Amino acid sequence: MTGMVDELRTPALLVEAGALEANLATMSAALPGERLRPHIKAHKCTALAARQYAAGHHGFTCATVREVEGMVAAGLGEDLMLANEVLDTRRLGALVADGARVTLAVDSAETVAAAADGGLREVIIDVNVGLPRCGCPPDRAGALAGLARERGLRVRGVMGYEGHLMMATPAAEQVRLTEEAMKLLLAAHADVGGDLVSAGGTGTYAVNTWATEIQAGSYALMDTAYGSLGLPFAQALSVLGTVISVSDGWAVADVGLKSLGMDHGNPSIAGAAVWFCSDEHITFAPEVPGSVRVGDRVRVLPAHVDPTVAMHEAMYLVDGQQVLERWPVDLRGW
Amino acid sequence: MTGMVDELRTPALLVEAGALEANLATMSAALPGERLRPHIKAHKCTALAARQYAAGHHGFTCATVREVEGMVAAGLGEDLMLANEVLDTRRLGALVADGARVTLAVDSAETVAAAADGGLREVIIDVNVGLPRCGCPPDRAGALAGLARERGLRVRGVMGYEGHLMMATPAAEQVRLTEEAMKLLLAAHADVGGDLVSAGGTGTYAVNTWATEIQAGSYALMDTAYGSLGLPFAQALSVLGTVISVSDGWAVADVGLKSLGMDHGNPSIAGAAVWFCSDEHITFAPEVPGSVRVGDRVRVLPAHVDPTVAMHEAMYLVDGQQVLERWPVDLRGW
Repeated sequence: MTGMVDELRTPALLVEAGALEANLATMSAALPGERLRPHIKAHKCTALAARQYAAGHHGFTCATVREVEGMVAAGLGEDLMLANEVLDTRRLGALVADGARVTLAVDSAETVAAAADGGLREVIIDVNVGLPRCGCPPDRAGALAGLARERGLRVRGVMGYEGHLMMATPAAEQVRLTEEAMKLLLAAHADVGGDLVSAGGTGTYAVNTWATEIQAGSYALMDTAYGSLGLPFAQALSVLGTVISVSDGWAVADVGLKSLGMDHGNPSIAGAAVWFCSDEHITFAPEVPGSVRVGDRVRVLPAHVDPTVAMHEAMYLVDGQQVLERWPVDLRGW
Repeated sequence: MTGMVDELRTPALLVEAGALEANLATMSAALPGERLRPHIKAHKCTALAARQYAAGHHGFTCATVREVEGMVAAGLGEDLMLANEVLDTRRLGALVADGARVTLAVDSAETVAAAADGGLREVIIDVNVGLPRCGCPPDRAGALAGLARERGLRVRGVMGYEGHLMMATPAAEQVRLTEEAMKLLLAAHADVGGDLVSAGGTGTYAVNTWATEIQAGSYALMDTAYGSLGLPFAQALSVLGTVISVSDGWAVADVGLKSLGMDHGNPSIAGAAVWFCSDEHITFAPEVPGSVRVGDRVRVLPAHVDPTVAMHEAMYLVDGQQVLERWPVDLRGW
């Protein structure tokens, strides 16, 4: 597909090719090959995952069964980790039976049983390192690994996501807290064994030197929340809108709650103050009154990349005004 | 489709049939036939729209071109109002040429021109009645109607959404403010002419006695934000999740930011305090410690219905544990 950005129907998800390529190159230089296991939940797009594969990362992290299925269907199933607990494991077992490599996170006797019953062959022990979400207590990891081995499962190691530290500042404090969290994970690893100590994200990719692999995802497209941290990744993602109404003091574009993840707060528009979003609208005040006209295009920068991408059927890879490719967001749903 | 709720993959959007039917009946009794023009942006589902049609409402309100297209394809295109400004009107014009009745909101010379150029035949003048979004100033409505008529367009009347008053309290104050807003709309109507004075929503459906028709949508499925207002509509919508992890003090289910609209804040779970949502997780603390087990099903009540529904491929009409029907959310996208 080729064409011009101005011909796209709006709202449309845009990815700046130059920024994306720079982000992939920067991350691959910092964490080459197996040191990075890109988390594809951040983009849900096998075309983008193929770029990460080409950059040298052959193992991927997934959050849902459908993400695993889609990656296998796209020929990217060499080493997929579903970093999430799943009880209905039949679809995963079918993929394994067909030759895909799928490693499932487990944190309880119930999830170990579900993995074994569903036909999984490999698991990783999910350990709570401080974020109140999934993961067993560190001192329970060894027993759980034993349970898994009794059921004939291979245990690849431990994972533990320090998600509560992604935005921690100042830098020295983030290092200290990450070390504290990873000491819990390493203690669990000593009890569990296996090759993998999987952890981290875009906010700690350069800080977390204890994990054997980092599960970062947001670095590829970025959002304004991560953008505030001073990381060496550029904002590659925006939502293109059309200005449909201009009033005295504000304007409205056709980018709203159904095309923007809102859990991290309002999106941003360069040169304007965003007032609020409605289902299909963003109301914003241009800094220069009278500078926006009906029919103008605006680029809206989302505050949180993952849920934003999941709302769109496709993203458009662009270079300035040129549309280079249309990439389906083909890993949506569950 | 039949089956049991416990057999559904999670997350899954559930609609309680009894609550839905009661909501439709209550609204149809209050605003029969043409007094209600249901807004289908709240559910994006032609199967549900067909129930509203069967309840006597033959005109519908839409927010996007795709919603209009989908309603026409479903045979529900008798009288569709796209209550939103659109510049790329070609798809709408094609529907009109094929016999659908589509009335498009306009609030500027540019949108009037787009309507005429695209092959629309009917428009409604969108008037700003206090919400800083789309809509022309009331004193500009008459001139705009004249402009539309010069272009050969039939002007059906005025619309003006008092969205800023949906949650206004106390009740007497809501009445007073709604009257103030509707006086602006009626003044514009005096200048514009036409049969329609279209306004209102679920929060003002019983208060707004000035409009000839009310554009309510949320009343059918409801959410916890509207649920706080004491309206005679029951919460019909929930997102079914599976508990995948239980820790000392909290539990986690597989319902997260990608299955819940978050702009109105956290969702709710009966008998539990919701702590936070992540992409695919909700962390919550049960009121009774130890009462939740891995594998349990939970029903998560979203704070905002419209963006929640738009994240799902389908909704399941249920009666207790019985799944009655699977309804595709077939009006998603743009």
